[in-house]
Amino acid sequence: MWQLLQFPLCPFSRKVRLLLGEKGIAYEPVRESPWQRRDEFLDLNPTGQTPVMIDAERHVTLIDSTVICEFFEETVNKNALLNGSAVDRAEIRRLVVWFDNNFYSDITAPLLHERMIKRIVYRQPPDAKALRDAMKAAVGHLDYIDYLLDHRTWLAGATMSLADITAAAQISVADYLGGIDWKSHELAKRWYIGMKSRPSFRQLLAERMEGITPPADYEKLDL
Amino acid sequence: MWQLLQFPLCPFSRKVRLLLGEKGIAYEPVRESPWQRRDEFLDLNPTGQTPVMIDAERHVTLIDSTVICEFFEETVNKNALLNGSAVDRAEIRRLVVWFDNNFYSDITAPLLHERMIKRIVYRQPPDAKALRDAMKAAVGHLDYIDYLLDHRTWLAGATMSLADITAAAQISVADYLGGIDWKSHELAKRWYIGMKSRPSFRQLLAERMEGITPPADYEKLDL
Repeated sequence: MWQLLQFPLCPFSRKVRLLLGEKGIAYEPVRESPWQRRDEFLDLNPTGQTPVMIDAERHVTLIDSTVICEFFEETVNKNALLNGSAVDRAEIRRLVVWFDNNFYSDITAPLLHERMIKRIVYRQPPDAKALRDAMKAAVGHLDYIDYLLDHRTWLAGATMSLADITAAAQISVADYLGGIDWKSHELAKRWYIGMKSRPSFRQLLAERMEGITPPADYEKLDL
Repeated sequence: MWQLLQFPLCPFSRKVRLLLGEKGIAYEPVRESPWQRRDEFLDLNPTGQTPVMIDAERHVTLIDSTVICEFFEETVNKNALLNGSAVDRAEIRRLVVWFDNNFYSDITAPLLHERMIKRIVYRQPPDAKALRDAMKAAVGHLDYIDYLLDHRTWLAGATMSLADITAAAQISVADYLGGIDWKSHELAKRWYIGMKSRPSFRQLLAERMEGITPPADYEKLDL
C-alpha cells in the first residue's frame, strides 16, 4: 500500500489526500514534521517538504504534490480531476499554481509560521501585524473565488477539478488557523460548504494538530 | 501565431522557448518587463509573472511556464519531453519543480535581483554577500547535477527531457549574471555544453539584456 508522509496542517498533503479520496486510492498516512529536518527524510526528498508518497514494494517514491496528483491522474481513470480539452486543462493547472503559490505565500504560509511554527519550534507568540496582513490577503483571494464562481459552476469550469481541491486544501488550513472570514463572500462560502460536505473532506476535517484548536465553525456545514 | 510575453533573462520564459524550439512551434516573442507591473499585463495574468502565451485568433491565453509546457506536450507530439512510464514522468516533473523552485530561489532569483532589478529599478549596486551566497548555492546545485549524471545520461534518465531544459534555462540565466563556476564539475559542464549546442539554445544565447553584459564564456561551446 502507498504511504503518504504528511502532517495534519500541510496544505499540499491535504490536496493529495483529497485527490486520493476522490479517486478511491488506499494509503497509509505517516506523520512527518518537515521543520524537524530529519536526515532520513532529507535523503528521501532534498527539498525537505511534504508530501512524499512511497510504494515500498514497487520501490517508487513520488515527491511534490503536483507531481503526485499528475501521477495518479495519469494512472487512475476514476473521477478525472484534469478534465476537458487541453485549454480546459491549462485553466485547471493555472488555478492549481495560483492557489499553491499565491494563496499559499500570501495566506497559508504566514499563518502556519505565526500560529504553528512559532508555537512548536520557537515558543513565541504570533506577530499581530503578520496575522492581519494574511487575513487581509484572504479577503482578496475570496473576492477572486467569488469572481470565478460568478461565471462558472466550479472554479475552473463546469466540473469539479483539481483546481477546487487545491483551493479548498489551502483554505481549510487557513480556516483551521483562524484566517478566513466568510462575511460578504456568499458564492465562495457556498462553494466551500459543498467541498466540505464531500466524504473525501470529512476525514481531514476531523483531524487535529496537537496543541492547536480550530475555530468552532471549522467542521460545520452551516456557516 | 502564438505570442510569448517574456524578457531575455526570464528563466521560465527560456524554459518555454527551449521547449517550443525543440518541438518546432513558431511564436513571436513580445517584450514584457514584469517589474513595471503594467495594468494590461496584470489584467491578463494576476500573478504578474512571465511567461504568458497568447493565441489571439483562438482567444487562448496560457499562464505559467509549467502549464504552458504541459499544454504543448499534450497537443504537439513531436519530440516528447515528458517521456516514458508514469514513474519516469514523475521523476522528470520532480526535477522540473526542483530547478524551477529550489535552483531559482537559491540562485537565479537573488542574482536577478542583485544584478538586474537593482540596476534597472533602484539604480543601486549589488550586495556582495547576496552574490557570494548565490554562487555558493550554485556549487551545491552543480554537485547535485554531477550526482544525477553519474547515474544517468540525462538528468531524469535515458532521454533528454523537460528536466534538462528546465535546468539549462535556470543555469543559462545564472551564467549570464556571472553566478556559475564550472570548476570541478566536469559532468555538469559537459552536459551543459551539450545543451548549449542545440539549435533551440543558440538563439537564446545570442540575445542580450540591455545594460548587462554576460561573461566572455557565456556563448562558448569550449568552456
